[in-house]
Amino acid sequence: MERTYVITGAASGIGKATKELLEARGARVIGADIAGSDVNVDLTTLQGRQTLVSEVERLSDGRIDAVLAVAGLSSPTVATAAVNYFGAVATLEGLRPLLAKSDSPRAVAVTSMASLMPHDDALLDAFLDGNEEAALARAAELAAGSPEQGNLIYGSSKQALSRWVRRQAPTADWAGANIPVNAVAPGVVLTPMTASLTGTEEARTQLAGMVPMPLNGFFGPESVAQLLAWLSSEENGHLCGQVIFIDGGSDAVIRGDSTW
Amino acid sequence: MERTYVITGAASGIGKATKELLEARGARVIGADIAGSDVNVDLTTLQGRQTLVSEVERLSDGRIDAVLAVAGLSSPTVATAAVNYFGAVATLEGLRPLLAKSDSPRAVAVTSMASLMPHDDALLDAFLDGNEEAALARAAELAAGSPEQGNLIYGSSKQALSRWVRRQAPTADWAGANIPVNAVAPGVVLTPMTASLTGTEEARTQLAGMVPMPLNGFFGPESVAQLLAWLSSEENGHLCGQVIFIDGGSDAVIRGDSTW
Repeated sequence: MERTYVITGAASGIGKATKELLEARGARVIGADIAGSDVNVDLTTLQGRQTLVSEVERLSDGRIDAVLAVAGLSSPTVATAAVNYFGAVATLEGLRPLLAKSDSPRAVAVTSMASLMPHDDALLDAFLDGNEEAALARAAELAAGSPEQGNLIYGSSKQALSRWVRRQAPTADWAGANIPVNAVAPGVVLTPMTASLTGTEEARTQLAGMVPMPLNGFFGPESVAQLLAWLSSEENGHLCGQVIFIDGGSDAVIRGDSTW
Repeated sequence: MERTYVITGAASGIGKATKELLEARGARVIGADIAGSDVNVDLTTLQGRQTLVSEVERLSDGRIDAVLAVAGLSSPTVATAAVNYFGAVATLEGLRPLLAKSDSPRAVAVTSMASLMPHDDALLDAFLDGNEEAALARAAELAAGSPEQGNLIYGSSKQALSRWVRRQAPTADWAGANIPVNAVAPGVVLTPMTASLTGTEEARTQLAGMVPMPLNGFFGPESVAQLLAWLSSEENGHLCGQVIFIDGGSDAVIRGDSTW
């Protein structure tokens, strides 16, 4: 039977590549983005998150087979904190009742190798507590501070989302309902989001110093799409809470064999 | 072009299921096992490891596309230490020159969620030092000790192999040669190896206490085969040193969000 997928961030980058791949393989994909997709909503707002769920319910006739929470920003802004963590969690939790109607439901979040980068303790704690008001207030402080402070927003949001997947996946809501939930953590992927970081030789050299990728270097979003397609396919019935780095080795270089 | 795969442990369990899956998909598979396969060798011995390489070289005409080091034992014996670590490493390193002839080479090792279980420090250190003489001597001491001591051999061997993958994947030998090397770490998979642990209700209950698998419980080797097939396919060009737990959530339950 044809599978129905929901992909946020579907208008560009990894989300777009994944939508195109799944459609080419015969799946039905409901895309969501702030503009230019099937469902156009702003995931920084409660209203946008609620509209996502109601529109997906309407367009899918109440049953979906997979959710891919791809939408994310990398700018040093409050919006990044809102979308990357609270928008992603709202996507996964809000669509879970529709997933539960599937015979082979799957959920995947896109985090980042930046989850290994420095973070802000107060922001991270607010994310993990699910306290959006406190998180956005702290993000606003960081955004108003030095560039280094602003840059902590992205890594903190991605670490929090990775850890949300770890904590939630084995619970009654997910594993107990036979829904695998996992994450992919990309290294540097050549998308509109990273274009400013990879646009010049100098920028690329600086970035490669922060994100060592000895295996095949920077790469295109199609490779992430293929991993997302596998994780959200019927073939994956037993991965639970895995955060898979698709990063050319930056995780292995940075953490070595302290983590396995 | 048809891909050529080498699978050790191909005569039973995960190795057999993977061989059958890949062959059904049109691949050429050279199986190896102690008996009943295309290449019949004892990977506890230097002679067996050398014969594996020379026979694969002969049967493949000198080029292979993927190596899946699946062969392993779970008994509290010296042979388990020899096969699970040194046999697997010899398989991967010995066949690397043939892999390097491929346009899309891939290598995958099968470790275990037992890599998270208690280990023996002396045995683990000997593995990580690549000191087979010391490792086998220590394994012999453990095998002659209490059942608890004997049981440390398996987890130690699997932790060592997981960490070998983490250390080696980003190096010049692997990432530098454009060869992704990764690992899968299964939970309880229903194979001949685990039959004695899952044969009675009492044994299953005890095992489930040690290996919590909230997502869909114990499962068959076909699911691991599907993950191995993806990791060794052309689609996976950017995962480097990942240890993916296919374990129904035991890793996420045991380590929680301390690891991501």
